Amino acid sequence: MDSFKVDQRDLFFILKDQLNYKKLCGLERYKDLNEKTLGLLISEAVNFARGVVAPLNEIGEEQPPRFENGRVVCPAAFREAFQQYGEQGWTAAARDVRYGGQGFPHMLRIVINDLMYGACQAFNMAPSLTHGAAHLIESFGTQEQKERFVPRMYDGTWAGTMCLTEAGAGSNLAVLETTATPEGDRYRIRGNKIFISWGEHDIAENIIHLVLARIKGAPPGVRGISLFIVPKIRVDRNGGLGEANDVVCTGIEKKMGLHGSPTAALTFGGKGGCIGYLCGRENRGLAHMFQMMNSARINTGVSGMAMAGTAYQNALAYAKERRQGRDLTGRDSAQIPIIDHPDVRRMLLWMKAMVDGMRSMIYSGAYWDDLARELPPGQEKERHQNLVDFLTPIIKAYCSDMGFRVCETAVQCLGGYGYCRDYPLEQYLRDTKIMSLYEGTNGIQSMDLMGRKMTIKGGACFQAFRREIGDFCEQNRLDNELGGRVRALAAVLERLWEAAGKMQERYRSDQFLWASCTYPALMAFGEVTMAWRLLDLALVARSAAENKGRRNDFHLGKVHQAKYFVDITLPHTLATIETCLRPGREVVDMPKAAF
Amino acid sequence: MDSFKVDQRDLFFILKDQLNYKKLCGLERYKDLNEKTLGLLISEAVNFARGVVAPLNEIGEEQPPRFENGRVVCPAAFREAFQQYGEQGWTAAARDVRYGGQGFPHMLRIVINDLMYGACQAFNMAPSLTHGAAHLIESFGTQEQKERFVPRMYDGTWAGTMCLTEAGAGSNLAVLETTATPEGDRYRIRGNKIFISWGEHDIAENIIHLVLARIKGAPPGVRGISLFIVPKIRVDRNGGLGEANDVVCTGIEKKMGLHGSPTAALTFGGKGGCIGYLCGRENRGLAHMFQMMNSARINTGVSGMAMAGTAYQNALAYAKERRQGRDLTGRDSAQIPIIDHPDVRRMLLWMKAMVDGMRSMIYSGAYWDDLARELPPGQEKERHQNLVDFLTPIIKAYCSDMGFRVCETAVQCLGGYGYCRDYPLEQYLRDTKIMSLYEGTNGIQSMDLMGRKMTIKGGACFQAFRREIGDFCEQNRLDNELGGRVRALAAVLERLWEAAGKMQERYRSDQFLWASCTYPALMAFGEVTMAWRLLDLALVARSAAENKGRRNDFHLGKVHQAKYFVDITLPHTLATIETCLRPGREVVDMPKAAF
Repeated sequence: MDSFKVDQRDLFFILKDQLNYKKLCGLERYKDLNEKTLGLLISEAVNFARGVVAPLNEIGEEQPPRFENGRVVCPAAFREAFQQYGEQGWTAAARDVRYGGQGFPHMLRIVINDLMYGACQAFNMAPSLTHGAAHLIESFGTQEQKERFVPRMYDGTWAGTMCLTEAGAGSNLAVLETTATPEGDRYRIRGNKIFISWGEHDIAENIIHLVLARIKGAPPGVRGISLFIVPKIRVDRNGGLGEANDVVCTGIEKKMGLHGSPTAALTFGGKGGCIGYLCGRENRGLAHMFQMMNSARINTGVSGMAMAGTAYQNALAYAKERRQGRDLTGRDSAQIPIIDHPDVRRMLLWMKAMVDGMRSMIYSGAYWDDLARELPPGQEKERHQNLVDFLTPIIKAYCSDMGFRVCETAVQCLGGYGYCRDYPLEQYLRDTKIMSLYEGTNGIQSMDLMGRKMTIKGGACFQAFRREIGDFCEQNRLDNELGGRVRALAAVLERLWEAAGKMQERYRSDQFLWASCTYPALMAFGEVTMAWRLLDLALVARSAAENKGRRNDFHLGKVHQAKYFVDITLPHTLATIETCLRPGREVVDMPKAAF
Repeated sequence: MDSFKVDQRDLFFILKDQLNYKKLCGLERYKDLNEKTLGLLISEAVNFARGVVAPLNEIGEEQPPRFENGRVVCPAAFREAFQQYGEQGWTAAARDVRYGGQGFPHMLRIVINDLMYGACQAFNMAPSLTHGAAHLIESFGTQEQKERFVPRMYDGTWAGTMCLTEAGAGSNLAVLETTATPEGDRYRIRGNKIFISWGEHDIAENIIHLVLARIKGAPPGVRGISLFIVPKIRVDRNGGLGEANDVVCTGIEKKMGLHGSPTAALTFGGKGGCIGYLCGRENRGLAHMFQMMNSARINTGVSGMAMAGTAYQNALAYAKERRQGRDLTGRDSAQIPIIDHPDVRRMLLWMKAMVDGMRSMIYSGAYWDDLARELPPGQEKERHQNLVDFLTPIIKAYCSDMGFRVCETAVQCLGGYGYCRDYPLEQYLRDTKIMSLYEGTNGIQSMDLMGRKMTIKGGACFQAFRREIGDFCEQNRLDNELGGRVRALAAVLERLWEAAGKMQERYRSDQFLWASCTYPALMAFGEVTMAWRLLDLALVARSAAENKGRRNDFHLGKVHQAKYFVDITLPHTLATIETCLRPGREVVDMPKAAF
């Protein structure tokens, strides 16, 4: 069943018309690229997602990985796809050519992930984690480590993982107990890790684990954590495989979804024979890992959005096809396609706006990320970094929770069929639920946004965001068609800035009350970001149509979705802001025994 | 794993303190009952739910029914439980003693279902459908039919089903194609039905299907549909089993959840040998079925609420147990139970309010339903019927969608563990998703509420609801502690009545625009109903505490949850009302090609 659906026009419209992404080719790192090359890569990614990745979504669900005597057996199709994914350059599309990358903008990795996650979330986690692990080595490893591990990970020969979580240390890594004992220029690793995505499998000939552990004698807490490279099978200096490295998989989780992706519990050094190599600086492991974690947070938002995207397209296709019920006003006596029922259209238009808005939010963040990385040092580089820093927890939490909500709505469009596995919708709903939980729960994201991101660099991250969205409102407040809605957004923003200020005071005076409101506050930030991106898309669509001399349905859709979203969302944003400011302390004061 | 959790105090507080349900014993039908008997029944139901039904939740998930050569094989424990359920009187607790019922108030059937659905939704559908089918025969069948079928269904010997849906006739029964050809005093049935819950199984010795079909020559549309009794195995006049009745199960659905409950596709009379008996009047099948459908709609709300209830209790137990992270202000250097994190408390308090509010809404509806059924003819009987009629689509849609939302939030409280099958939360989330889809999608419920229920009987249903909630506000608007919130509710109600009036105009002038807003309007009605029930519960809790001379945590919890819910919900209700009144027609005007 070919369930993966995407409308490429939506992607390219954001990239070309809204963001004018070819400007990236003016940066030193991308000077050999041009818009055509970028476009070709995306079209090829669509083909690869459709042809190779999409079929895995059902295969993984029907033949999930099996745990057998310490090994995890995956469908053969996953192994083939993983190798092709590496060989054809998708894993390292945005990495430098030096270790096997293709040198494309970082932004394109997000676009590629949009397609690949939409096609099969469970599979795409494998190359995505491999990329993350290899990129860590590329960033912090020694020259020798880079040469030994990175190229084989980028080309699909080996896979990689991130090993953070332990049974007692989930959201709080400070208490992790895995140890590393020095032994010459290497370490003996001992400890147990859980929830390791693709922690064990047979889709690559080796797995390179990036493991957080505590060197004997290191300070307690997060300041005593280091990062280690721990291969499943030992690797000699030339990359040749040696003996097993005492990394044992003790089981895989039974999960709500993502059945194609094995989530492993791993024991390192249970027999004392696990060798690891320090990656980067001693006791700086968490700081190094943060590079990957930020990227993983954005990717989690991408997953939520991408699954929402294909869920919406599937619901749309069904609604055009399925005939059920009669026209309300009796204009037609035959059964009509359900897309003609206003309540179904309501759900479809909302989903369309959600997907387009989330995609625009994420692609904008990815675009700024490239500028932050590649611009020469200076104010502009700084400003873009601040924007990305502020947007990261919003992308992670808003797009994961709302991606789930879109998948739920897509199920609803299908009626009883939405609940059945004959259609892919119920799987998207199950698969997407993890996004609000991993890579830092959404509650944690909200504390990061309303705490750290509001205060670091003297508030520069928040100010950069505020200026960016404020400038948009200023420039478009008098627009004939959309000015009223732009002014409505500006009015909500005024209240939001006020609320953010008051929450900052509360952060200092009553941290418990503050923390009981950070999640709704994050969602309010998410909603204004959506309104901004959608209004901008609508304005861009209108100009594009004017340039072409006529408005077509594609452009009209962008305008309708923006109007609808803004009108039905901003009143709720305002309500949310009010609830964040209320003095009521019931959440905090509630005695435990009163629950 | 004993995952079913319920706090009986919450149930009894609504029944005794809020509703004073012993007043039902003053009705003629219940004159032999007293509060103690009612209480005993409920305590026994808790024991049965815990001891017999709850273990089935995991058994059904781990050993789902298998389809083998036209038969469906269920776990033996299901068969035993089904028989006990009937034998011990749970199936027919609220039915008259004449055919094997126990004569308890109808309301107690809702309370029993609350417990049994919370313990195992997949299983409890079997006796619940059996009850519905038998009750239809009891209501509309001939004397002979009643005696032949009903007692054996109530006592757990036989099961029953409702066969409505066909592949082309889901929400629109008008086009159903199953036929019935007269043959003496019986009929030959031919047709295919899908989505038949417990349509085939081996947990009872026979299955009595209640089938909607069209008698040859009947008028087209819904006016030509009749109701038939179609046993799986033919039954002689004395209830003896004969030969198979040509009802063939052609498969069962693979579903997102409810894996313990087989959802069958059935072919009636594929070989021409299917005999059915007309139940009730010719061409009045849909009207007869409506008795069952209304009841099924309320029960769907009960399911959503009940699963939300046990999901909340499970999340609460986990949050008290699980230690993770440090106190925000560093008061404590050890890891603290996550219930001490404000963002977790936020979710818990919201869930608590949701569950208690939905339960109060549903129990109130059930109480009014008893009065509507059992009061002597007159204004009071009428008024209570009107209240129930109005509340039914709200209970169905609001409690199913919000029950799902509560289960989602409960998963969130557990972090990554919420996604794992080691805990029951992910199953509740999957199981509860069906509630918004079956028994009429929630979109259909919203059109029923804002269309039919607003207009029938000259608007008497709406007026009854309006008066009831309005009287509450009038009586409590000056309360020292909660008066401000009561007045806030009253202010929202004013806007809601205005909006309901404007939507009525629109219903006549622009039905498409009307239908694009019925769902949010229904949710606004749901929210004010919740605010009302929760404020009432808080006031009742306060008096109860005053009578006892001290406020304990239990009572304080009722007050806190009401304050919190009202404060964070009503601003959104107001926002929703505004969005229902906006003139924008994007949903309607959107060209199909623009999606």
